[in-house]
Amino acid sequence: MGSLKFYRGPEENNSDSHKANPLDPEEFRRQGHIMIDFIADYYKNIEEYPVQSQVQPGYLRKRLPESAPYHPEAIETILRDVHDHIVPGITHWQSPSYFAYFPSSGSIAGFLGEMLSSGFNVVGFNWMSSPAATELESIVMDWLGDMLQLPKSFLFSGNGGGVLQGTTCEAIVCTIVAARDQMLSRIGRDNIGRLVVYGSDQTHCAVQKASQIVGINPNNIRAIKTTRSTEFALSPELLRSTICSDIEDGLVPLFLCATVGTTSTTAIDPLGALCDVAKDYGMWVHVDAAYAGSACICPEFRHFINGVEGANSFSFNAHKWFFATLDCCCLWVKNPSALVNSLSTNPEYLRNKASDSMQVVDYKDWQIALSRRFRALKLWLVLRSYGVANLRNFIRDHVKMAKVFERLVGMDERFDIVVPRNFAMVCFRISPSALRKAPSDYDDENGIINNVNRKLLEAINASGNVYMTHSVVGGMYLLRCAIGATLTERKHIIMAWKVVQEHANAILSEYK
Amino acid sequence: MGSLKFYRGPEENNSDSHKANPLDPEEFRRQGHIMIDFIADYYKNIEEYPVQSQVQPGYLRKRLPESAPYHPEAIETILRDVHDHIVPGITHWQSPSYFAYFPSSGSIAGFLGEMLSSGFNVVGFNWMSSPAATELESIVMDWLGDMLQLPKSFLFSGNGGGVLQGTTCEAIVCTIVAARDQMLSRIGRDNIGRLVVYGSDQTHCAVQKASQIVGINPNNIRAIKTTRSTEFALSPELLRSTICSDIEDGLVPLFLCATVGTTSTTAIDPLGALCDVAKDYGMWVHVDAAYAGSACICPEFRHFINGVEGANSFSFNAHKWFFATLDCCCLWVKNPSALVNSLSTNPEYLRNKASDSMQVVDYKDWQIALSRRFRALKLWLVLRSYGVANLRNFIRDHVKMAKVFERLVGMDERFDIVVPRNFAMVCFRISPSALRKAPSDYDDENGIINNVNRKLLEAINASGNVYMTHSVVGGMYLLRCAIGATLTERKHIIMAWKVVQEHANAILSEYK
Repeated sequence: MGSLKFYRGPEENNSDSHKANPLDPEEFRRQGHIMIDFIADYYKNIEEYPVQSQVQPGYLRKRLPESAPYHPEAIETILRDVHDHIVPGITHWQSPSYFAYFPSSGSIAGFLGEMLSSGFNVVGFNWMSSPAATELESIVMDWLGDMLQLPKSFLFSGNGGGVLQGTTCEAIVCTIVAARDQMLSRIGRDNIGRLVVYGSDQTHCAVQKASQIVGINPNNIRAIKTTRSTEFALSPELLRSTICSDIEDGLVPLFLCATVGTTSTTAIDPLGALCDVAKDYGMWVHVDAAYAGSACICPEFRHFINGVEGANSFSFNAHKWFFATLDCCCLWVKNPSALVNSLSTNPEYLRNKASDSMQVVDYKDWQIALSRRFRALKLWLVLRSYGVANLRNFIRDHVKMAKVFERLVGMDERFDIVVPRNFAMVCFRISPSALRKAPSDYDDENGIINNVNRKLLEAINASGNVYMTHSVVGGMYLLRCAIGATLTERKHIIMAWKVVQEHANAILSEYK
Repeated sequence: MGSLKFYRGPEENNSDSHKANPLDPEEFRRQGHIMIDFIADYYKNIEEYPVQSQVQPGYLRKRLPESAPYHPEAIETILRDVHDHIVPGITHWQSPSYFAYFPSSGSIAGFLGEMLSSGFNVVGFNWMSSPAATELESIVMDWLGDMLQLPKSFLFSGNGGGVLQGTTCEAIVCTIVAARDQMLSRIGRDNIGRLVVYGSDQTHCAVQKASQIVGINPNNIRAIKTTRSTEFALSPELLRSTICSDIEDGLVPLFLCATVGTTSTTAIDPLGALCDVAKDYGMWVHVDAAYAGSACICPEFRHFINGVEGANSFSFNAHKWFFATLDCCCLWVKNPSALVNSLSTNPEYLRNKASDSMQVVDYKDWQIALSRRFRALKLWLVLRSYGVANLRNFIRDHVKMAKVFERLVGMDERFDIVVPRNFAMVCFRISPSALRKAPSDYDDENGIINNVNRKLLEAINASGNVYMTHSVVGGMYLLRCAIGATLTERKHIIMAWKVVQEHANAILSEYK
């Protein structure tokens, strides 16, 4: 951060700053420009930092004072501390060499949208409290639903509707609660302990957590086994047999979470067939496309959500791979009144003519919290700043780069691609065959090869040059290279593979 | 927004903007500076707008296109549309004449903290994913706990700990879930239908909603009646008798939400006595000081949370009256492992050495969602930019202004102060005695006076000069003047009272 020396000047602003109103427009302007330059410089120099933070637990408490300052401090002083003490503890999700978890894709438009949102700083719990916040949200959710070719029944124009939540976890809590209350109103509240939630062993942990939060008995959360032979997709036959067995045991099937693009391997559950099974038992189906939903704005990837028309709700995270900064989960439901019936509250202090008229959406009744940020602004800015054409191009570029990485892995016979690539993530590992000359030299081949891959991941992450993470599927430890950081270019992919190879050379030499 | 004409230039940037990387540092800098000036101008000109938006339902759909643009648009074009189409639909929570609900107090420091947070755009679900995000949060929560003189048992330094959530609703969901699972592990999961949650009829609707979300039977949520004679505080005696009656009915007392600063009138529940009752029945006590908690950093207001040492958890919203922008709820618990036991998930793809070492906090296990923003930055910036001294002064200034408003109301004999003012909110109404010459001219005096006050509120809000909201307590319709918008000065208070008087003159003339 070359220009940071600028911030090391004398703290001449200390004495003045506390006299002004803390929202004084000219002081806002002055400090705002300083911060813009700070962050622009951060992006400019981001490749200077180790991608994964290399600090040790407790590093920061040693560096900061024990209590808050009594007197005000200048922004220049604070930014110096951000540089000296915070940045070393940051894992740089915006680095072009960040390939861990799923991306947290930032963009100028997403960032500016957040700025506008915190600038207006409205609390749009109901229409009345800031009509633009509600109306823009409904509009962009319809726009986005169109871009994804969601069935009309999910859009406001088709009597469904979309809402922006913080995260998929929240979206799943809300949909399970809606499903739960619909079911309990039919079978009686005392039966809450009989309700069952279904997913696969690849379903995101959010479903287990959400189920527990809403009072589903933890014994009634099914993680149906998947296998490599079906690329870790949930089997409709296994779903049906699990449901039948639960019904025989006196339980009540409630909710299925089907996933398009699982976290471990971007596996695709077969939506159509799963929805058919669920329909036979009157279950609510939620489609979690947290990561992969973004890709479905490209016609060539849209088929991955074929069958969504049979689901009750659908969500994806615009903060993952859609250039909206954290947090921004897009949720559509076919039947908004199911949400509203479960989540509405109408205290006197929020009563107003617009709500009483029933002509407006009050989003407080579509989510957990009362207060809500004006998140639609950033989605609107992303859609308009880039347009459908470029958003598709950005996603396609990431997929192309993933293909490059996949090809590089494929050319090195010491490595396996663990599952076929669907989007912009490549799952790979050092192959067992790379280890040995004779096939039976090791007792626990799987344990050993998993250890070798674990060592490989630790070594590449400790280098600071790239950051990837892992998963274990079907007993196999694998490395995940998830491409989607906004600044990533082809050269970073080539470099990442070089880093992997260099560390693989070193590790494999121990086993030869 | 005088300088906005600038944005009406030709859209010459259209053709270039889509070629650049959407996070290009120099383009970020250019657009960032434009946005800073846009928002600074917004604050400068904020008094030109009606405080409460005057648009009609559906106004925005008529003005925006039916679908997202295919081609990119320039930021200048978008900002022109923000000015022309979004701003009219904004209710200006940052206006100095905003006195509705509770404040959503912005500040330069809070805004800059949000910028930094979306600039880094890290997803700090566990320590590993960005150590600074976790460590700074733990540190500022201890700082802030010290400022509030919370008992050491709520701080990390005393084996408790603090966490930043989005809103109080989320904090209450998390604490009820923790309490519920602790209780059910003792009495068996089948007893979820017997659990009872307690509050008063003044408790925020978040408690009812959270209870329903986590599976408490809606019949088992108690809103114990309060009266004007005790200033709408929850009576420990009534709490005890309600609990006893529930126990006789075979129910199980679980959770009490006590409030310091209720939404309708800023009433104060007597924490010490309530905690004593709850303790007798092994209940979890949460203290909701969403609005008033901020004031307790001033020694002269700290007594309002006396007795908090008997509670299990405490929360306040730093986005209300503590100069952090939305959203930022500060929650402390004495027993973090109760939260973690209920809310933790440990999928393989999140496993890492730091978590396995048990030496770090993984905040994902303290909240509903997995993903989480780096909210600690804005709180840290607020604490450092203003220091304890000025934060106290800002709050004291608001309380002083509320006293001014209270005095003005008190000098006009047509008005009543409905309850004594505790903080910076004044509850007032046109008095029944202002209506008539003889006492018994009206059949339904209460209905009529309520209607008069409703008309008054509608008239002053329709003027666009100020925005206040209402509540109804003990059958009385009252107007709430909540002072705390950052830009509010003494002159705005004087003006607000003038607006109230003018409209009261007009309305009362009809009844003379």
